[in-house]
Amino acid sequence: MATENKKFIAVIGGNQCSKEEAKLAEGIGRELARRGAILVCGGLGGVMEAACRGAQSEGGLTIGILPGENPQAANPYVQIPIVTGIGYARNVAVVKSTQAVIAIGGNYGTLSEIAHALQSDIPVIGLNTWSLSRNSQPDESIIRAESPAEAVNKALSLAKNR
Amino acid sequence: MATENKKFIAVIGGNQCSKEEAKLAEGIGRELARRGAILVCGGLGGVMEAACRGAQSEGGLTIGILPGENPQAANPYVQIPIVTGIGYARNVAVVKSTQAVIAIGGNYGTLSEIAHALQSDIPVIGLNTWSLSRNSQPDESIIRAESPAEAVNKALSLAKNR
Amino acid sequence: MATENKKFIAVIGGNQCSKEEAKLAEGIGRELARRGAILVCGGLGGVMEAACRGAQSEGGLTIGILPGENPQAANPYVQIPIVTGIGYARNVAVVKSTQAVIAIGGNYGTLSEIAHALQSDIPVIGLNTWSLSRNSQPDESIIRAESPAEAVNKALSLAKNR
Amino acid sequence: MATENKKFIAVIGGNQCSKEEAKLAEGIGRELARRGAILVCGGLGGVMEAACRGAQSEGGLTIGILPGENPQAANPYVQIPIVTGIGYARNVAVVKSTQAVIAIGGNYGTLSEIAHALQSDIPVIGLNTWSLSRNSQPDESIIRAESPAEAVNKALSLAKNR
Repeated sequence: MATENKKFIAVIGGNQCSKEEAKLAEGIGRELARRGAILVCGGLGGVMEAACRGAQSEGGLTIGILPGENPQAANPYVQIPIVTGIGYARNVAVVKSTQAVIAIGGNYGTLSEIAHALQSDIPVIGLNTWSLSRNSQPDESIIRAESPAEAVNKALSLAKNR
Repeated sequence: MATENKKFIAVIGGNQCSKEEAKLAEGIGRELARRGAILVCGGLGGVMEAACRGAQSEGGLTIGILPGENPQAANPYVQIPIVTGIGYARNVAVVKSTQAVIAIGGNYGTLSEIAHALQSDIPVIGLNTWSLSRNSQPDESIIRAESPAEAVNKALSLAKNR
Repeated sequence: MATENKKFIAVIGGNQCSKEEAKLAEGIGRELARRGAILVCGGLGGVMEAACRGAQSEGGLTIGILPGENPQAANPYVQIPIVTGIGYARNVAVVKSTQAVIAIGGNYGTLSEIAHALQSDIPVIGLNTWSLSRNSQPDESIIRAESPAEAVNKALSLAKNR
Repeated sequence: MATENKKFIAVIGGNQCSKEEAKLAEGIGRELARRGAILVCGGLGGVMEAACRGAQSEGGLTIGILPGENPQAANPYVQIPIVTGIGYARNVAVVKSTQAVIAIGGNYGTLSEIAHALQSDIPVIGLNTWSLSRNSQPDESIIRAESPAEAVNKALSLAKNR
């Protein structure tokens, strides 16, 4: 498989999610696959599963970086399960293995991934997700998108060669 | 050393910090030591060093959970250096080893620690630090404090037996 | 890419190696690819690079689970670089992501990977590598092989569905 | 607490152990405390618990670096529980936080700790534990001891300033 020119993009979000979030995630997975990108995620349910389902439906490659010791914990659309056994510390690996991150909704785990990405200067695109301010000043580092197509466009154009 | 009734409190913030932040951190370190709490931090400079200096000046115990492989990277006021070698993933260990977290200022690394703490339901007290909102709704999980004494009071009263 | 029936096999060994070890590793990589297995390794040089080169020459898929923060540290035959940033702790992820491990030569890092694999009951096949005894009793858990073909045969037949 | 001249020594071994191993571990814990060293271990039962019990009985300080997320998993003689949440990857932190390691018996987890220590050039003293050979050549890196006093003597005299 030739991956040398492919971009690795993370899709992050809750292990449980609303129908609307799942629809967004699936659309993003499909669009990433159509555009030839490789999808990286935390490998579990919710947003991660929906994104993998979308990517697989378009023939894309899906990687799930799992917190536990059991590869069977991966959702059925993960093609490459990476078993870390390091718990939430795997959140660091999810984002650092990619060139851009797309966040959909999400809870504190997603927030930690956003933070780890921004710390490494990896672009973060957000849909209906966290907003940040620091010392009462808005931090605009999370780039907003309103649709799957817009999110994927922004992620691919901002994706850095690391 | 009898530690069974002692509380473990994290002080988190930037590896570099303003004079004002250092003053706050040192005051918090002193107050934690006077109140018999054990200080946990990431072991490096800035806010971490100032907090350890304050705690040590009052005879308190200081623990530094380091990202790298070299214990000499600890600031000189760390009495117990823990060498993890796991990089930013050590942020998870810093907060999960404590019963409450006090955040002072800070950058994205601090934000990741706040997120990991909230994910584990560990109370976070903040001074001049991040504010969060989710899907345009403010998330008030970070409890505000204006002074070292107020921060330590809140941290100790909210500290959970885990 | 359909990976559901594919086996994930780790090849472990030194970041520097002898010509003979490199030849063994390359042969193992080639044979794994011909047999349809996915190669997992630590992503760096020496045995890891030779194994990836062999696998890629036969059209196989190669995954490198890196210790540092920089995906560019991967050898040029790694198609899927996973960036963990957790240093030697990534050795755990290398072996736990697979169904069998083939060890070639190696130093203490390789020994730690053998230990982590055996701890999780993942079969380890060894060529010119460590031998163990415990309390003066030989521990025969490492299954010996003399050639790449024998190593791959044993690895694939012992590979467990985890 | 003045720790600047104190040595940090790991005691490693099984989470379950024989009575004889427990007796050795307790003796080592006592002797380390009498000699002013700080005991570091994985925080759980068996050898770890016996060593902590010995150290505490002589007023020594005990640190337990835990694999899971729950500080309550620490044995009752751990005074400083460090909660990593990174599973077996915490084995790296246990040994790298010390200047010498004493191994008693042990299974594959202990073997992984021995390997991680030797990889970092941290001296390993062994009682009734693993023996290694590489490519049929004995590897004598594990320094043998027959009694708690001998083990502690060797550990303290070999302990490196890291």
